Amino acid sequence: MTAQLHKEIQLANRPEGMPTNDDFNFVEKEIPIPAENEVLLKTLYLSVDPYMRGRMRDVKSYIPPFELNQALTGGLLAEVVESRSDLFEKGDIVSSNLSWAEYNVANASKLQKIDPTAASITAHLSVLGLTGLTAYFGLLDIANPQAGETVVVSGAAGAVGSIVGQIAKIKGTRVVGIAGSDDKIDYLINELGFDAAVNYKKDSFKEDLINALPDGVDVYFDNVGGDISDAVIRQLNKHARISLCGAISSYNNEEGDLGPRMQGQFIRTSTMMKGFTLGDYAKELPAGVAALTQWLQEGKLKYDETIVEGFENTPEAFLGLFKGTNLGKQLVKVADPEFAKL
Amino acid sequence: MTAQLHKEIQLANRPEGMPTNDDFNFVEKEIPIPAENEVLLKTLYLSVDPYMRGRMRDVKSYIPPFELNQALTGGLLAEVVESRSDLFEKGDIVSSNLSWAEYNVANASKLQKIDPTAASITAHLSVLGLTGLTAYFGLLDIANPQAGETVVVSGAAGAVGSIVGQIAKIKGTRVVGIAGSDDKIDYLINELGFDAAVNYKKDSFKEDLINALPDGVDVYFDNVGGDISDAVIRQLNKHARISLCGAISSYNNEEGDLGPRMQGQFIRTSTMMKGFTLGDYAKELPAGVAALTQWLQEGKLKYDETIVEGFENTPEAFLGLFKGTNLGKQLVKVADPEFAKL
Repeated sequence: MTAQLHKEIQLANRPEGMPTNDDFNFVEKEIPIPAENEVLLKTLYLSVDPYMRGRMRDVKSYIPPFELNQALTGGLLAEVVESRSDLFEKGDIVSSNLSWAEYNVANASKLQKIDPTAASITAHLSVLGLTGLTAYFGLLDIANPQAGETVVVSGAAGAVGSIVGQIAKIKGTRVVGIAGSDDKIDYLINELGFDAAVNYKKDSFKEDLINALPDGVDVYFDNVGGDISDAVIRQLNKHARISLCGAISSYNNEEGDLGPRMQGQFIRTSTMMKGFTLGDYAKELPAGVAALTQWLQEGKLKYDETIVEGFENTPEAFLGLFKGTNLGKQLVKVADPEFAKL
Repeated sequence: MTAQLHKEIQLANRPEGMPTNDDFNFVEKEIPIPAENEVLLKTLYLSVDPYMRGRMRDVKSYIPPFELNQALTGGLLAEVVESRSDLFEKGDIVSSNLSWAEYNVANASKLQKIDPTAASITAHLSVLGLTGLTAYFGLLDIANPQAGETVVVSGAAGAVGSIVGQIAKIKGTRVVGIAGSDDKIDYLINELGFDAAVNYKKDSFKEDLINALPDGVDVYFDNVGGDISDAVIRQLNKHARISLCGAISSYNNEEGDLGPRMQGQFIRTSTMMKGFTLGDYAKELPAGVAALTQWLQEGKLKYDETIVEGFENTPEAFLGLFKGTNLGKQLVKVADPEFAKL
C-alpha cells in the first residue's frame, strides 16, 4: 500500500530585506497518521500575518524563530478527516496554530472546535480570531478611548486596523484612518463609517493628515511605524496614548532605521506609548471573543477578507501584506471540506 | 526720598543651541512696594532647573515660554521683609515660583510658608520640593517598580535622579545609575547605596552598562534621552516601563535629533513608555510631600546640593546643568535673611 503524499511549506532561507518566493520551499511528504487522542486534519484556510516576518529572523523575541528547512506555522482552519479522539468526529471544523501544510496531525487538546452555523467559518481567522482580539485589547486596554476623543489608526484598511476603527466608533470617538490607496480611503469612510481617512502615498499626506485632525490626536493605534507614525506623533494632544501593535514599515529593514527622537514631545504632552502582543492577554481572551461576537451579531462590526485561492499561492499572499494588496484579512483558501457542509 | 534699587535677570535673547551668559540681562529696577494682602520678599535661594531651557524657546508647551526682556521665573526661597497680609509676618520663610530678582512682591495666596525647624530650608527647593516630587510620582506612579526588579536611572547624580535611585532602593529593587564622572559614580555607589553605576563618558560605556545589567532592565527612569537612552532601551526586559522625566541631551538641539526607532522593540517586549510633568499630579502633591518627609526623617533619603554663591552667578549655575557640573540639586544662594534665624 502506497502512503499518500501532501505538501508543506518550509522556510528555505532567512530573508534579508523583503522576502521573495525563493525563501519558501514546497516539500512533498507522506500524510501523517494520527495516534491515540490525535486527529488528521485537512487544511481549509490559512492565515498569513505580518508578524510572521519577525519569526523568519534568527533573533530572540516573544516567540521563537521559525527553523530553516522546517514547515512554517500559523493560524488555520481545518476539517477533521480522521479522528482517534472522543472529542472530535469527521467533518468537525477546528481552528489551531499548525504547520503550513495540506494535512496536519494534532492532539485533540490543541484544537478549538468551531460552530459553522454561528458565523462564516473564516471569521474565526479574522474578526473572532487573533485579528479581532488584537484590535480589541490593543485599543481598549492600552488606549482606553473616551467618547469625543480623536482616534487615529494606521494600516486602517488591514485586518486589525479595520476592526480597531470600528470598535473606536462603537466607543463614540472620532476615527481617522490612514491607508495606501484611494479605494481603501473610500472603503474606510463609506463602508466602515470612519469619520475621515488619509492616503499616505499622496504627496500631500502630511497636509491632509493635519487637515483631518482639527482637534489633534488623543489615541493612536499604530500598525506601521516609520514616517507615517512620525507625522501622527507630531499632532498628539496632552495625555495622548499610543498602542503599538505593529511596525510593518520596518519589518524588512535589516539595519534598524532612524527616526526623530520622541522623548521630548512625550514629556511635553505626557504621552503614553505601549507595545503589546496578544500573549499579554492570554487570560482575558474569552471576554474579548464574547464582546466581538456580540458586536458582530448586532451588525456593529463589518469585516472583509481578501482570499487567495490555492495552497501554492500562500507565499504570494504573504508577500502581498508588505505591498498592501489586501483589504481586511488576508487568507489563503487551500481546499474545500470533504464531509462538512458549510 | 529715593526709591531703593535691586536687580532682576531678564531673558535677553532666545538662545539657539547651548545658551550663553549673553542670553541673560541684569536689569536694575526699583524695589516694588506691596499692596493690600501682598508681602515684600527678599530672595534667599534660587533653583535653576533644566526644564527652564524649554521655556526659552518660543513654542507651545505645557507651560508658556519666557518673554523676551522680561524677568525669568523659577522656584525660590525668600524671607518676608514687609507684610501687608495677616497670614505672614517679617522673618517668615516662604517658597514660591517668582521672578529671578533680589526682591519680589507677591500676593499671600501664592506663597507656601516653610517651617525652618523641620529640615534645612533648601530641602524645600530639592528633596521636599518639585525635585523630590518629580522623582516620587515619575518613578512610583508611572513605573511602579517591584522588589527584585532592576531599575536604571540616567542623570543619576542629578537632583531628580539621585532621589529616584534612593526611592527605588526603598522599594527593594536593584538600582543602576548612569552619570558622567568617576566622582559621581563613586558618590552613587558609596554615598547613596546604588547597586551599580556606569560612567557614560567612558569609551567602554555600552559594555560597562551591559555588564551592570545581568538581569536586563525592568524600569528605566530617563532624565537625559539621546544615545544613553538608546543603550538602555536595547536591554529592556519583557513588560519594561520607561518613565520620561527629561531629555537634557536634546534641549539645546534646535534641529530635533534622530535616533533608532523603538517601536519594534517595544512590541516584542510589551514595553510601556510615558512622559510626564509634575502638573499631572497636582492633586496628589500633598501625599508625595508626606512620603518624602517621612523617608527623610527616617534617614532613608539623602540629598546633596551644589550651591553657587551670589545672584550674579545665576546664569553660570544654570549653564552648568548642561555640563553636568552639579551633584544633586543646583541652587544659587542670593542673600542671607534679615530677620529669620536659620
